[in-house]
Amino acid sequence: MTHLTQPARLAAQTLAAMSTAEKNAALAAISAALDTARNEIFAANAEDIRLGRVAGLRESLLDRLLLNDARLDAMCEGIAQVIALSDPIGEILDEFTPSSGIHVQKIRTPMGVIGMIYEARPNVTVDAAVLCLKAGSAVILRGGKEAIHSNTALVRTMRSALPACPAAISLVTDTSRQSAHAMMHAKGDLDLLIPRGGASLIQTVVRESTVPVIETGAGICHTFVDCSADLAMAAAIATNAKCSRPSVCNAMETLLVHQDIAAEFLPVAFTAMAPYKVEFRGCPTTCALLPQAVPATPEDYLTEHGDFVLNVKIFPDLDSAIAWINTHGTKHSECIVTADHQNAARFRTQVDAAAVYHNVSTRFTDGFEFGLGAEIGISTQKTHPRGPMGLREICTYQYHITGDGQIR
Amino acid sequence: MTHLTQPARLAAQTLAAMSTAEKNAALAAISAALDTARNEIFAANAEDIRLGRVAGLRESLLDRLLLNDARLDAMCEGIAQVIALSDPIGEILDEFTPSSGIHVQKIRTPMGVIGMIYEARPNVTVDAAVLCLKAGSAVILRGGKEAIHSNTALVRTMRSALPACPAAISLVTDTSRQSAHAMMHAKGDLDLLIPRGGASLIQTVVRESTVPVIETGAGICHTFVDCSADLAMAAAIATNAKCSRPSVCNAMETLLVHQDIAAEFLPVAFTAMAPYKVEFRGCPTTCALLPQAVPATPEDYLTEHGDFVLNVKIFPDLDSAIAWINTHGTKHSECIVTADHQNAARFRTQVDAAAVYHNVSTRFTDGFEFGLGAEIGISTQKTHPRGPMGLREICTYQYHITGDGQIR
Repeated sequence: MTHLTQPARLAAQTLAAMSTAEKNAALAAISAALDTARNEIFAANAEDIRLGRVAGLRESLLDRLLLNDARLDAMCEGIAQVIALSDPIGEILDEFTPSSGIHVQKIRTPMGVIGMIYEARPNVTVDAAVLCLKAGSAVILRGGKEAIHSNTALVRTMRSALPACPAAISLVTDTSRQSAHAMMHAKGDLDLLIPRGGASLIQTVVRESTVPVIETGAGICHTFVDCSADLAMAAAIATNAKCSRPSVCNAMETLLVHQDIAAEFLPVAFTAMAPYKVEFRGCPTTCALLPQAVPATPEDYLTEHGDFVLNVKIFPDLDSAIAWINTHGTKHSECIVTADHQNAARFRTQVDAAAVYHNVSTRFTDGFEFGLGAEIGISTQKTHPRGPMGLREICTYQYHITGDGQIR
Repeated sequence: MTHLTQPARLAAQTLAAMSTAEKNAALAAISAALDTARNEIFAANAEDIRLGRVAGLRESLLDRLLLNDARLDAMCEGIAQVIALSDPIGEILDEFTPSSGIHVQKIRTPMGVIGMIYEARPNVTVDAAVLCLKAGSAVILRGGKEAIHSNTALVRTMRSALPACPAAISLVTDTSRQSAHAMMHAKGDLDLLIPRGGASLIQTVVRESTVPVIETGAGICHTFVDCSADLAMAAAIATNAKCSRPSVCNAMETLLVHQDIAAEFLPVAFTAMAPYKVEFRGCPTTCALLPQAVPATPEDYLTEHGDFVLNVKIFPDLDSAIAWINTHGTKHSECIVTADHQNAARFRTQVDAAAVYHNVSTRFTDGFEFGLGAEIGISTQKTHPRGPMGLREICTYQYHITGDGQIR
């Protein structure tokens, strides 16, 4: 790994000293290079697609892998948005002069060298590289083997736009387990490791890595419909949370319903989701109240379906619903629909998740929606950073202390 | 570990809902209980001291272990200071209303259940318990076996002062390797693990733990005396950094000197430290310029001596000194003494450490000196928190989103 981390460390030092204008110029050069190299990138991508078909990849995975003009345009548009974001580096987070007379500034500074381990989405390659560059860090990317030709072409193109520090963006071309293992144990050479992908990939990295890890993405999100909820609002929120994009991590997996309104609400919710043919998997009470529901297994409630499948469970009160969320959720996004502000406040205080919603769909947990700009993922850990990770969240900070000879 | 973590989780929920006044009352009760139970605590401590003598512990370790009236008074004084600190919980860190109309608040919230693994200093038991309680988290403490009787008495006493939630403070009484292993793998049950102690303890925890860890304390700190430095100031700063308390992590281990002033400065520095009988271990140039110096080994430069031993090395320029610091330091505290503000700025930008000093002794890296109040340790990692860790640094945050039915 040192053949990549050593040049990356030097590139990180160059990036750390670059002005905002210099970083933005580099980003614009990357965008232009990607635009110019379309045909080369598409040819490499076609090879990944061909090999993917031979290997029998399912259509949804082939679709994630595919690059075309629209998707390359979207990458360049994403770069333009990152250029427009304010530079997080050098921001003064705190500043004080204690009685000793020393002057202390707490300053936002680059992380250094960031590693990313992810699966077969080539757009992550560009998104991550661009965000890390603006945040002043070098990045070492290890995408899935299914995207290796696409990623090689994308990274070669981006590096060609960075003559002063090509090693700001590096690709691990060995996609074996050994290279992932090497990244997880490159403590000191990598400052941070961000895994993105399925739960098993993320858990492997969390378990094995000695490099600090940000755990991302697993989302078993709940919506609790309280007895005082506006049922039309609750049905609209639940339908949006489940159906607007079921494959993403901020989609709802489980609908929790207060028993006092369950008989009235369940048919309303079922009808609202009927256009999406959502399968309701319910507890015994749910199945008794809603004939269309099928029985849920205990595993269903611990599964991120990522599909038009909804777990449903009835609760006698708020406390039991909160307890359920805290033992079955993934600390991502949790919602209460209620007209009772005291219950909303209790839900906020007691639910342990990055984002806690009152009368809003969980689908809003997103860097753009929170106004952070682009994001590199959503952290589900409790240590910082938590929730959507934009530019500021992939930086660190440093104390700068100046004086005129103070001793202690 | 679940026999401790499950009650701790429930206690954490109680703590999270407590007002500042309630937490301060609990802290005052703890202080009063410790004051009242002096004799019981001292008797338990005497047993640790007796067994320590039998086991042949060295005097410095026995001294760290010892509790007496003055040290118990200091603990109670520390609690009074924590009571006086403002409550970090509920602080609004950010607040915004994006165009979707949702209202987003980023709020400081408790971490949950924090684990501490440390060695034989019973004062850490009280400091950590008190800081975690004020920060709204339950704590599970595992001190060294040498202090087990003292820790048992201290924790029993503190718990007696918390009738509503005794499990806010728990002690792991099994001091075998198995219990440390169990803590490191209690992912989900522990939200955070903080090791404090020697480098080998900390590295073991970093390597093995699947619970998020804050790496603390190892301090190989440098002071670089630039060619433009005021040599009297440089000697005073170096003497303070090395001699005022050589066993602590913010003490200097290595003095770096610009070659242009080395011949003049080294005798001045040696004389300044003569009252402390500091042994100078130098590079060949140092030994040539300062007859009292003995040759340093490569290992010396990677060793936290914690004693009146000083590594010395001569550098031709600022860049080579910075490169040395970045490969030999522990990202803790680094100092430049210079009259050249451009060099100071370059040092700040390029040195990768939690605290970077210009014309100030590294001994100031400390929660009290930075105005954070009490601290639970000093983080040497780059991920948050970095540097001195006070109340705010052992909290997390949560986004609270409210609206009136927004969907996406």
